[in-house]
Amino acid sequence: MRPKAMEYFDQMIANNAVAIKNVKEAGRKVVGYYCVFSPIELIEATGALPVGLCATKQEPIADGEKVLPRNLCPLIKSSYGFAASGKCPFFHFADAIVAETTCDGKKKMYELMEKMKPMIVLDIPNTTNLERRKQHWTEEILRMKDFLEDTLGQEVTIDNLRNTIATYNEERKNIMELVSLNKHEPAPMSGIDLLKVMWGRSFQIDREEFKTNLLALIDEVKDIVANREQSTAEKQPKKPRILVTGSPTGVGQEKVMKIIEDAGGQVILQEACSGIKGFVDLVDETADPYEALAAKYMDIPCSCLSPNPRRMELTSGLCNEYAIDGVVDITLQACHTYNIESYTLKEYLREHNGVPLLQIETDYSQSDNQQIKLRVDTFLEMIQG
Amino acid sequence: MRPKAMEYFDQMIANNAVAIKNVKEAGRKVVGYYCVFSPIELIEATGALPVGLCATKQEPIADGEKVLPRNLCPLIKSSYGFAASGKCPFFHFADAIVAETTCDGKKKMYELMEKMKPMIVLDIPNTTNLERRKQHWTEEILRMKDFLEDTLGQEVTIDNLRNTIATYNEERKNIMELVSLNKHEPAPMSGIDLLKVMWGRSFQIDREEFKTNLLALIDEVKDIVANREQSTAEKQPKKPRILVTGSPTGVGQEKVMKIIEDAGGQVILQEACSGIKGFVDLVDETADPYEALAAKYMDIPCSCLSPNPRRMELTSGLCNEYAIDGVVDITLQACHTYNIESYTLKEYLREHNGVPLLQIETDYSQSDNQQIKLRVDTFLEMIQG
Repeated sequence: MRPKAMEYFDQMIANNAVAIKNVKEAGRKVVGYYCVFSPIELIEATGALPVGLCATKQEPIADGEKVLPRNLCPLIKSSYGFAASGKCPFFHFADAIVAETTCDGKKKMYELMEKMKPMIVLDIPNTTNLERRKQHWTEEILRMKDFLEDTLGQEVTIDNLRNTIATYNEERKNIMELVSLNKHEPAPMSGIDLLKVMWGRSFQIDREEFKTNLLALIDEVKDIVANREQSTAEKQPKKPRILVTGSPTGVGQEKVMKIIEDAGGQVILQEACSGIKGFVDLVDETADPYEALAAKYMDIPCSCLSPNPRRMELTSGLCNEYAIDGVVDITLQACHTYNIESYTLKEYLREHNGVPLLQIETDYSQSDNQQIKLRVDTFLEMIQG
Repeated sequence: MRPKAMEYFDQMIANNAVAIKNVKEAGRKVVGYYCVFSPIELIEATGALPVGLCATKQEPIADGEKVLPRNLCPLIKSSYGFAASGKCPFFHFADAIVAETTCDGKKKMYELMEKMKPMIVLDIPNTTNLERRKQHWTEEILRMKDFLEDTLGQEVTIDNLRNTIATYNEERKNIMELVSLNKHEPAPMSGIDLLKVMWGRSFQIDREEFKTNLLALIDEVKDIVANREQSTAEKQPKKPRILVTGSPTGVGQEKVMKIIEDAGGQVILQEACSGIKGFVDLVDETADPYEALAAKYMDIPCSCLSPNPRRMELTSGLCNEYAIDGVVDITLQACHTYNIESYTLKEYLREHNGVPLLQIETDYSQSDNQQIKLRVDTFLEMIQG
């Protein structure tokens, strides 16, 4: 049974794409961001609204390819196409953009995008074993603070920042509580529904409203699980429990997850940055807030970091915790870092968990759906023995 | 007339691929490197031989693709394939490898390669407008010094380092003197011959021998130019003067340059890192040598840096200095940074020089030769009006 509380999340992003105009008209500044590396607490602490930017639809890619190469990640082409064509309302209404040098494609694309809006591109160190990494991140966060204050004409106060950090930590805990309900067998939430909530989190314009709906959803899902466990109905045969990882899978391009679920797999959770990657760590509320933000954000286990052992450990741990039968590693076309890291992850999971990994390289088009379906069918068959 | 002194350079890399064994047997340590960002003065200052590593042949790509994705730069797949298959004698005999986080593909590939040899991967900041960039580079160079000393058991002395810096500066000046002879019309050196010298520079095992041959070549080319100018022979119709830029074009994959020259263009020089990119700046001999190395290497105008205005300014200046009629921008398959930057460079040269740019995306295979030839023919026709 699908939770009724999902209705809010079904419409949330579309509703907010309209309502963002009201936010602006009410005089609130808006700051757009693309990536889970963006320390958005800092945006909220200026009084501005942090909001995710459109990046996950096929349609604007043609606009992106007017300037960008074809052999490039669809997320990057879509982001640029949305911005250049004015089709992303969140970008349109943004007073400033926060971005990062996560990957080659993004950092070079941002050189072109920064002609459109006031923008800061945070420098992310490539290497995880640099001694100065935390200090580097702290300096970048302070540079972002200066940029926001100058651009918005609004100051970050320490009290605001501490309050925001606490609010966002609570939100992360709530989201992880929802995700953890999928430890039950069968999982009460579909992967696509979980995605709607987690992706939607970046497109909030009213954090209280989001929280109320999220808590209602958690309660409802708990009830579903409890009632189901009391029921005497026959158990269904177990469907393979799949963890999805790799390049981000946002709302609008959930085709691989849909294929897995249509083929009889359960997408239990996403390790990707469109999943739990940004939610597993909290910001330390007892430390200096800038250093605490640095410590949290620098450790997001993205493949753009080299080496990236945390992703192996995290995914391996999730496989145990969530009783995962198989991992599907989605690589967006020409996403070199996730593409190359797939080999390392596959070897790691084989060795530590005995869990098989299927890598799927794809883009936002529908042209490879049949081929993906064939591969997913085979993978699920293999898992079921 | 082709200079006779080119005979040395025709055979040099092949000869040294055999002779490297003798270097090792004579007890000298060998340190391999891939990239123009490697501060190789530091290697030489330990007493070890710095030597370039094989990366520019099609053959080992199949070995690379056993582990690496297909949609990746051929240079990266070739480098890994050469190393993994033992087909690069310079890698085979290396006691250590110096590498850098230049691009996504390389940094992730190095995570796999570092299981084969003692290796340091220098962290290159992504952003050029970071205040701490020079300090970051200096710290990385000192980390490299420690790595080399620990791995080789040989110390860098300041005197050795200063002497090496002076020697390498002299070598850069000599190479730039050779290149600058191509300001003459017609250019006395073919682009492929210049490449042999400049690429060969990384595969020296005897710097005195290389220098002697380089100086002999310079003298001979000067004579050719002088005699030609005294001659009363009819002038040939002028061939379009082409500057090549973009991803590196090494010996073994000079197919685009060959197509340009066969089609009646003159490849005057390469702005790429296989050309003059590493030779235009000297290391300051009066400053602290570690800081001086940092200052020189951090400013190499590679597209991996963001933004990269120096490449625009350098290429634009070269177009004027060398009376360039057209620029061919070679993008190796899936090299995102050069691929995206091509748009910026094209706009810049149109605006500042009125010089047209043709971008050619290719790999190491021969399968696209006919298509490239068609495009180059059209480009040259267009230039000649």
